[in-house]
Amino acid sequence: MGITAELAAFAVNSCFDSLPSQVQAESARAFSNWLGCVFGGSHEITVKNAVSCIDEIGGKPKASLIGHNRKTDIINASFINCLSSSALAYDDTHLTTVTHPTGPVAAAIFAYSEKERISGEDFLSALAVGIEIQCRLSNVLLMAPAESNLGFYITGLTGPIGTAAALGRLLRLDEQKMRWAIGLAATQGAGFRATHGTMAGAFVPAIAARNGAMAALLAAKGFTCSESSLEANKGFVDVFSTGADFNYAVEGLGKTFEVLANAYKPYPCGIVIHATIDACLEIATSLPLDECYKEVLLTVNPLTLTLTDRRQPADMFEAQVSLYHWAAVSLLHRSAGISELSDTCIKDSCITRLREKIRVVADPSLQRDEAKAQVLLENGRVITSHIEKARGGFLNPMTNDELEMKLKEQASVHLSPTSLDVVLDRLRNIADLKDVGGQIVSSFAK
Amino acid sequence: MGITAELAAFAVNSCFDSLPSQVQAESARAFSNWLGCVFGGSHEITVKNAVSCIDEIGGKPKASLIGHNRKTDIINASFINCLSSSALAYDDTHLTTVTHPTGPVAAAIFAYSEKERISGEDFLSALAVGIEIQCRLSNVLLMAPAESNLGFYITGLTGPIGTAAALGRLLRLDEQKMRWAIGLAATQGAGFRATHGTMAGAFVPAIAARNGAMAALLAAKGFTCSESSLEANKGFVDVFSTGADFNYAVEGLGKTFEVLANAYKPYPCGIVIHATIDACLEIATSLPLDECYKEVLLTVNPLTLTLTDRRQPADMFEAQVSLYHWAAVSLLHRSAGISELSDTCIKDSCITRLREKIRVVADPSLQRDEAKAQVLLENGRVITSHIEKARGGFLNPMTNDELEMKLKEQASVHLSPTSLDVVLDRLRNIADLKDVGGQIVSSFAK
Repeated sequence: MGITAELAAFAVNSCFDSLPSQVQAESARAFSNWLGCVFGGSHEITVKNAVSCIDEIGGKPKASLIGHNRKTDIINASFINCLSSSALAYDDTHLTTVTHPTGPVAAAIFAYSEKERISGEDFLSALAVGIEIQCRLSNVLLMAPAESNLGFYITGLTGPIGTAAALGRLLRLDEQKMRWAIGLAATQGAGFRATHGTMAGAFVPAIAARNGAMAALLAAKGFTCSESSLEANKGFVDVFSTGADFNYAVEGLGKTFEVLANAYKPYPCGIVIHATIDACLEIATSLPLDECYKEVLLTVNPLTLTLTDRRQPADMFEAQVSLYHWAAVSLLHRSAGISELSDTCIKDSCITRLREKIRVVADPSLQRDEAKAQVLLENGRVITSHIEKARGGFLNPMTNDELEMKLKEQASVHLSPTSLDVVLDRLRNIADLKDVGGQIVSSFAK
Repeated sequence: MGITAELAAFAVNSCFDSLPSQVQAESARAFSNWLGCVFGGSHEITVKNAVSCIDEIGGKPKASLIGHNRKTDIINASFINCLSSSALAYDDTHLTTVTHPTGPVAAAIFAYSEKERISGEDFLSALAVGIEIQCRLSNVLLMAPAESNLGFYITGLTGPIGTAAALGRLLRLDEQKMRWAIGLAATQGAGFRATHGTMAGAFVPAIAARNGAMAALLAAKGFTCSESSLEANKGFVDVFSTGADFNYAVEGLGKTFEVLANAYKPYPCGIVIHATIDACLEIATSLPLDECYKEVLLTVNPLTLTLTDRRQPADMFEAQVSLYHWAAVSLLHRSAGISELSDTCIKDSCITRLREKIRVVADPSLQRDEAKAQVLLENGRVITSHIEKARGGFLNPMTNDELEMKLKEQASVHLSPTSLDVVLDRLRNIADLKDVGGQIVSSFAK
């Protein structure tokens, strides 16, 4: 049996009770993190522009544009809600492959769960299936011995497939139709990294949501595709990599789960910056509020500097990937949240001046989630911090309370305190809900 | 200036009068061929399944589902009408790169021309721009010294870009927005050839139409993208090829036109089969109707056999790429049109028996558009034919009359004779129309 058929069988035959309890819980955490990010990003200019576009297009109002108090069709809702969850780069990360797995999958199945009544158990198991297939295929394309062009945006390649599998599960596709859905999604795999630093960076996961959803809906209507699209000559793995090991797709399938290697960001910026933020926050919170910094020395893994060496970011998109910006706001604001992405903050003269006082050293002996910070105060005192495992990573995961705080930070502009309490309560007990879409969306309005 | 900016400037600054008259005329022929193919494919099962899917989704009824007497939003109309034009593999071919250029571009701008009043001149120049950019980028990816994975379906990669440029022209995007539109389209480039032989083969051009249209509409709303997406590191050309020569994109831009190397198929099947059909038709028409064939020997270019070696096709999708099927129907039916793709014809016992009597020899000295046929009749007589340039190719193009016949063959099921006459008349004078969408669609109803 080829991997297309094996993954299709896995998707069709999975159910909530077949998932280890740790996987059930982690899927619920992934969804909760996603929903917060959707609210957080929903009023960014990226999303507003796209909403004004789809407002002119259609379609049947079956699913919410979260944060916008109105509905559209499930394809456009999948697109917009995933765009929202990606817009602040605050979404989750499969660290092995830097895939952002939950955005496309959750957007599509949540939109569908508003159209049809879906139980919490079915919803979480579909989500788990989608994340699993997506991350396993990312492993196939990227893990040795495979060689891939790293210009491809991996979430755009594997996201449609995970999404199609998850929605296909809710549509109760049989195995053949699931193979078609996987193929129709795979042949829509798209996206390259030259889009980063513009609105189009969030666009790639968003089209993965839309395209994966469409693949499942078409397959349900009998639209056929090759049944071995993933492994076939001139198929998915063939065109996107060389020398891939298909075992990553299927070894331990149903027993080991990639969602357990999924990380949630405590800060809305490039994940390689996070350890530096931790270090700067540790220093800042040990000092009086009005402390003056004379010099700052950061020591980071070389990749961090390669990806985030932007001393004075011009806008939010550049600030998201500026090491200097986040070090400066962490020291001065003692905070590294979405308000630190505002134009006011990015252009603040105190922040701008402090960015100029930062020196960065790249040290290959440091891990990607490790960083050192050393500050020299105006009074001559030197304070240092060494973070060995950044918050939010695999070995230092965000707690449930921290994830709730993150959701509150992002949703509080859009929901009343009462409403927010209801949402949090339903998310805590999501597996017990009888109607995920209906019960969660109705709580937005309270 | 990079190629993204150069192509964007070309798209923004092109107009009907800047096109050589030959290019104006060929663009009109390309559109006429496309419209016939849309009617021809519109009731295939591929399209019916997709229509039943999009019926559940959207959208504002602004553009016709051609052949279906109803409207949907312009994104879904672009998708469905291009799916129709591709469904019978009867669409046009840029022979150098085996790109099918008109489908995605025409589908999107025709849908838009129903929403907004677009003159014939503007319509044809947008079409010419889209085809030009699409084919030039196909040349960049495929022509030496470039090396690409031939598993990618080239229409799926470059189709969205040509489509976005054409629709962007009608939307009167400025150069910066045109660069965004090109980038948003490029990052949606997708599709591999393992989908061929299933409904998904036509799906790839169809999503190119949808995605290119969406790219232009988003850019018009201010949705940004990298302005050098095509040539950037980790951009379009980088991820899809190695060693490409960017000159193919811009050398002679506005002076030489790829649409002049575009070919229209006289037969609804793989283009490498066409010379064999010509040969068999030549033989059959020289004989009495009830002639009996004892043996058939075909001599073809080796690629023809590699791509079409299916003696007894199981269904329409396989028949489209079966050399034996088309040789048999040409000899027995003296016809090689869409009725030869019916299940009745594919399963007909006379056809099935004759396919068994065919022997094929691959001869590298023959060109791809060249073939020989030799038949041995029951009476012992031997007849041969040697076609050096298949009908429809660059050196033996279909005439305007033949293109009209092709349109009639495909549209006559859907239109009354009067209506058909009006459509043909408007197509002949398309450059003079004041409102392409309105005037052509209104003629369907007469």
